[in-house]
Amino acid sequence: MPAQHHKYRPSQPVPIRDRTWPDRRIEQAPRWASVDLRDGNQALRAPMSVAQKQQLWALLVDIGVKEIEVGFPSASQPDYDFVRWLVEERQIPEDVTIQVLVQARADLIERTFAALDGVHRAIVHVYNSTSPVQREWVFGADRERIKAIAVQGAEWVRNEAAKYPGTDWTFQYSPESFSQTEPDYAVEVCNAVVDVWQPTPERPCILNLPATVESASPNVFADQVEWFCRHIERRDSVIVSLHTHNDRGGAAAAAELGLLAGADRIEGTLLGNGERTGNCDLVTLAMNLYSQGIDPQLDLSDPERIIATVEECTDIACHPRHPWIGELVYTAFSGSHQDAINKSLRHQRAEHNRALPWQVAYLPIDPQDLGRSYEAVIRVNSQSGKGGIAFVLERDYGLQLPRWAQLELAPVVQRASEEQGGIIDSASIRALFEAQFIQDQAPHRLGGYRISRNGHDQIEATIVSVGREVQEQRIQGEGEGVIAAFADAWSRAFGQTIDVRDYREHAIGAGTDAEAAAYVQLAIDGQPVAGVAIDRDTVSASLKAVLSALNRSAGMAKNVRMQQVA
Amino acid sequence: MPAQHHKYRPSQPVPIRDRTWPDRRIEQAPRWASVDLRDGNQALRAPMSVAQKQQLWALLVDIGVKEIEVGFPSASQPDYDFVRWLVEERQIPEDVTIQVLVQARADLIERTFAALDGVHRAIVHVYNSTSPVQREWVFGADRERIKAIAVQGAEWVRNEAAKYPGTDWTFQYSPESFSQTEPDYAVEVCNAVVDVWQPTPERPCILNLPATVESASPNVFADQVEWFCRHIERRDSVIVSLHTHNDRGGAAAAAELGLLAGADRIEGTLLGNGERTGNCDLVTLAMNLYSQGIDPQLDLSDPERIIATVEECTDIACHPRHPWIGELVYTAFSGSHQDAINKSLRHQRAEHNRALPWQVAYLPIDPQDLGRSYEAVIRVNSQSGKGGIAFVLERDYGLQLPRWAQLELAPVVQRASEEQGGIIDSASIRALFEAQFIQDQAPHRLGGYRISRNGHDQIEATIVSVGREVQEQRIQGEGEGVIAAFADAWSRAFGQTIDVRDYREHAIGAGTDAEAAAYVQLAIDGQPVAGVAIDRDTVSASLKAVLSALNRSAGMAKNVRMQQVA
Repeated sequence: MPAQHHKYRPSQPVPIRDRTWPDRRIEQAPRWASVDLRDGNQALRAPMSVAQKQQLWALLVDIGVKEIEVGFPSASQPDYDFVRWLVEERQIPEDVTIQVLVQARADLIERTFAALDGVHRAIVHVYNSTSPVQREWVFGADRERIKAIAVQGAEWVRNEAAKYPGTDWTFQYSPESFSQTEPDYAVEVCNAVVDVWQPTPERPCILNLPATVESASPNVFADQVEWFCRHIERRDSVIVSLHTHNDRGGAAAAAELGLLAGADRIEGTLLGNGERTGNCDLVTLAMNLYSQGIDPQLDLSDPERIIATVEECTDIACHPRHPWIGELVYTAFSGSHQDAINKSLRHQRAEHNRALPWQVAYLPIDPQDLGRSYEAVIRVNSQSGKGGIAFVLERDYGLQLPRWAQLELAPVVQRASEEQGGIIDSASIRALFEAQFIQDQAPHRLGGYRISRNGHDQIEATIVSVGREVQEQRIQGEGEGVIAAFADAWSRAFGQTIDVRDYREHAIGAGTDAEAAAYVQLAIDGQPVAGVAIDRDTVSASLKAVLSALNRSAGMAKNVRMQQVA
Repeated sequence: MPAQHHKYRPSQPVPIRDRTWPDRRIEQAPRWASVDLRDGNQALRAPMSVAQKQQLWALLVDIGVKEIEVGFPSASQPDYDFVRWLVEERQIPEDVTIQVLVQARADLIERTFAALDGVHRAIVHVYNSTSPVQREWVFGADRERIKAIAVQGAEWVRNEAAKYPGTDWTFQYSPESFSQTEPDYAVEVCNAVVDVWQPTPERPCILNLPATVESASPNVFADQVEWFCRHIERRDSVIVSLHTHNDRGGAAAAAELGLLAGADRIEGTLLGNGERTGNCDLVTLAMNLYSQGIDPQLDLSDPERIIATVEECTDIACHPRHPWIGELVYTAFSGSHQDAINKSLRHQRAEHNRALPWQVAYLPIDPQDLGRSYEAVIRVNSQSGKGGIAFVLERDYGLQLPRWAQLELAPVVQRASEEQGGIIDSASIRALFEAQFIQDQAPHRLGGYRISRNGHDQIEATIVSVGREVQEQRIQGEGEGVIAAFADAWSRAFGQTIDVRDYREHAIGAGTDAEAAAYVQLAIDGQPVAGVAIDRDTVSASLKAVLSALNRSAGMAKNVRMQQVA
């Protein structure tokens, strides 16, 4: 990069001693304020239509946002009309307060109150810019003059509000570009505003501190907030609010550290829409609290609706890696991650662990809390190992593959997914599993059988073999258990020695529809070979699993013979 | 939300006293390590093809990343093949070191070194998981056993490396899930690994601390890192590396605060691709440093190539609000923002301010540094005010509208853009501007003129008027300046009183192609009306601007008469 970095200045440290915020913890949700319909809307290529605003408003109300900035009615006729629609059509629930933004100018303030005429409760949010560049280069005004604009704005708001005594007013002031303003000056301006409004603990005002442009790491912002909270007058009569932007990728962190530093309220938007890099994402912040055991006071259980509505209103797609709700965030492709998720989910779900706090590797929360089924959790591609395959087969088909079967199947699935260059779906994985292990029909299949137990098991079975012609053969044997007896019968009839190295069986489903899956690992004449069968009957399943192994062994032997001939 | 939050635990505070990181500042770029080709690749629906890996590798090398993790060769044949390609085709520049990941297992470590056979320098990165959930639920092993796995892995790596004395090896160990591991245990395991490797200041090893899952606010991670740095043995022989994920939206903040806390190296990816919510974005982190006046040691001057390559390789689109490089991040739609940008850019560019550090409202850096032209900065839609319109007309056409012309034009543009429901382009704004102000042809236009100055100006001009028939009329007048003389001549000939309230004129372009734009605000018979003209000649421009105002006034009067008739 050309040496252009010299033209930039580092952010200024805050002269704070004994900061306390790094030792604090967030213990409850802040007051949430949505600025989707104002900051979010004004940052769009195409501002929202009336229908889109109504749709987004309904969503915000439904998820439980109680303070909603609905526009800048003095600057925009559509915003004005939207506020009138809310008021005249009685769209505002009793526990929801609308907020409107206005610059510190008399005519605009007057028009703002006119827009709100008849509302039962509202927050009037007045602002002016206070940073050096705004003072010197944009407004050409000194500190005193800029403070006077704030005071004058506060007075106009107070006086205009007095003309509408039927409304329960809350006043809000933002020293815009707060994070780039000298801390002492920001406090000086805000104290002057507080002096006009004379808030009380019962009727507080809101002081909103914007990181209009994020220009330092979030710890510096937290220092600014703590410094502000320490020095502002009437702290008990002031709601300290934060409004962060994401220019350095730290909007969420700055808001969180700002809460540690004493703030009470967060302004943000759904999915972080807003000017330039966007605002603090309320969903991220609320879910961050939720995942720490704190009630977020927002209902985010239907993220699909949030995503669909925000995408529709902003024409900006939700990033697939968006924290907490992106399409890929509960998905693991890596084999070791899949394996660890699989194992820890099993523990978490075990009866004796249900009361334990959530701790599943790679899943910071239970995806079901956000309406995500586990289906989304693991997807198998060529980077996946046995864990993912096992998970998918169990999740979708109830098949609990023993480790040796996972190990044998994994490279088969990996090869198939490499060949198709992407995700391999669970139906294909099941097909590969069946092709690999289930071979209970040819060349040999099980006809009828009889079993009797007297100290040990005796079996008499019919084997139907398909070669040049179909042959039936009765075989008889005995042993400790049905499988051992069947292996004995096979050995006596066909001369192969069969050693059962592993056997397991489990039910798939329950009730009259249940099936049984049986997995056996044999050594046939010393050669290890596995077989699987699925049947409505548990005994048939296990015998067929042995037959699968025998048939596979026969196929392998034939392949070897053919290779020797060739 | 259903009261499900109770099932989650808060993150554990770190027992740290007198933390120093909040008082520190980052003063130089860390060592950057890309994990795009490993962590990034394993998190994709479709892992990268060989061609895509080669393309991404070339980009990483070109922007100046010196340490690049290229895969997990023992777990993936494509990764193995890619490492062989790098080595055998001599693709690795002398100052670039490749890194490969491997689990702490003997067979995998052996295959990993085989993959690297013949490389001149490499980092072998071995890991095992150390958090309680991984120990208890995934591996079913206690602290001692997990530490033994790490030590055993470190030994295997050391012993295997000894078989390839031709390569300059660096060893790296990650206590995977570090951020969810008890700090004392993470240090205990890492100290045991350090004890095997015996690093020296001349031959340090790398200890990489992953926030495998981001599970606390970034200040907690910084506390973990500072605690680690204080307690690890042979601190001067250890490179402390961070690998953060974005589960809580704080990957960038955690990396930055972790650097304050003493880390030396950052693992991340371009645009933050990676498992689930992704990794720390190297572009964001580097640009954060750059914007603070620190040389980022990466060349990010061609973000379009970075975006295009990453999108091509990951099949994930860069979010339009992505910090520093998203399509919308240097765009302002809001009128007041546009106005402030406009004014402060003018100051910043003024000759006497060129040596000053950058301070432009709403633009944390000069977009030109990233190859963005100012064209992208301001876009006009119905939320935009006069500032944006003025900016666009000056930027694209060199027109410097006086404030009164901006005020008159703004609602016209706003209406037009509301009607078309989106961004309005600068050609349309110019057309609206011309339709509004330039009307110097009908009903009256300027024929020839003669001017003489003797103490004051005298003018003799021909006015060609188009009504039912074309009429020519010679008019004569005098006054202080050409415009006053022309107004006097008009008054004498047509009986209208003309008062010039404002006049300004400026050149557009330079040299023989230059034109002049003249803007006048008149009161015609007491009615204010403005006019504009553009001409190759400065005098013609100003006289035609007056004629524009007169013609507009005639048109307005006609409209009024027609309304009265109707």
